[in-house]
Amino acid sequence: MSTEIDKSKVVLYSYWRSSCSWRVRIALAYKKIKYEYHAIHLLKDGGQQKTDEYAHINPMKAIPALIIDGHIIGQSLAIMEYLEEYRPENPLLPKDLYARAIVRQMMQIIGSDIQPLQNLKVLQTVAEFTGQEEKKAEWAKRWIANGFNGLEKLLEKHSGQFCYGDQVSFADLCLPAQVYNANRFNVDMSHYPLIQKINKHLATIPEFIEALPSNQPDAEVQC
Amino acid sequence: MSTEIDKSKVVLYSYWRSSCSWRVRIALAYKKIKYEYHAIHLLKDGGQQKTDEYAHINPMKAIPALIIDGHIIGQSLAIMEYLEEYRPENPLLPKDLYARAIVRQMMQIIGSDIQPLQNLKVLQTVAEFTGQEEKKAEWAKRWIANGFNGLEKLLEKHSGQFCYGDQVSFADLCLPAQVYNANRFNVDMSHYPLIQKINKHLATIPEFIEALPSNQPDAEVQC
Repeated sequence: MSTEIDKSKVVLYSYWRSSCSWRVRIALAYKKIKYEYHAIHLLKDGGQQKTDEYAHINPMKAIPALIIDGHIIGQSLAIMEYLEEYRPENPLLPKDLYARAIVRQMMQIIGSDIQPLQNLKVLQTVAEFTGQEEKKAEWAKRWIANGFNGLEKLLEKHSGQFCYGDQVSFADLCLPAQVYNANRFNVDMSHYPLIQKINKHLATIPEFIEALPSNQPDAEVQC
Repeated sequence: MSTEIDKSKVVLYSYWRSSCSWRVRIALAYKKIKYEYHAIHLLKDGGQQKTDEYAHINPMKAIPALIIDGHIIGQSLAIMEYLEEYRPENPLLPKDLYARAIVRQMMQIIGSDIQPLQNLKVLQTVAEFTGQEEKKAEWAKRWIANGFNGLEKLLEKHSGQFCYGDQVSFADLCLPAQVYNANRFNVDMSHYPLIQKINKHLATIPEFIEALPSNQPDAEVQC
């Protein structure tokens, strides 16, 4: 990567299996924004996101980051909000203010209370602190279950075909990656019938299929 | 707490020292919204947020939650976005779309990448998993430093008197509680001159003073 950043194109810095990149890929598909895919391998070379060159793109040394409109934006939820404001067609937030609040409440449950607690670098730190590799799965499982318990209750009140009623929203964009990780860590999904039902439905939608890890140029195996 | 929830008033469920309640208190002060303060003690009675009664307010069994406009909303960042949309006077987001994205990027660094990793229940779990109480501070310190490293770089590009230019924003609302915790866990703040400078300025502003833990009805000691 050169230190000269070309801001004339739309570029997504992504890793095929990253939950946060996955959300943004779905948003870009809904907004029909074509982009160049720039793979950042989170494990190769000790983590390509940790280079000084990449830190110019995202000082958090994390993915995703999006170059768009001559700007660079980091943090998946901030990118999603930008895309919604920048291109309101195919809305991913309802119009009603209270409905928007509930969608954001669901999105933040996954985005603040689940995903950050079980991402790669946190699990590596759990292993380091405990000296036990097998503690990683126990840790991840606990926080996913904790968040899904709350989310399922909100879905009982508000869901339809999608997390909020019958319109796709930011909340849905966060779901597939989190369910994927829940299965990976053997969370008992029978406690979450609505999460399962909605996620099954999402898996049939073209924009969600396009954004799947296995459909990315840097995919290593089918998942 | 009765199971009948009175939705006719504005009520904030809060704990004086909670970082996420603190952010929302500042937002309410800026929006000049008067509210009833309902204290939820995170430690007393094994944690008052864990009761079945409170789970009707917030199924995540976490604070803050806000009753407003006949609705209940949880997750601090979702509440803040609602308040901004519901009452646009005294704006806490800039008008320019890219500026809004950077404010949200900064807000999410604290709200997703720092605070959730060092809150009470996560630190309790670190002690449980390691069997060592003293690991809590080491864990918290690492994640605060990791997030502040990225945030300080963004501030170098975008800050003025406040995190983004010379207008107070969501990013500033998240800062005081995080700096308070950084000091509590002995993070070396000399690496973060801009965070320190902005936080000092924020400490002089009436809305920020009003929201301080020590100024809440459930405050136990001065902090």
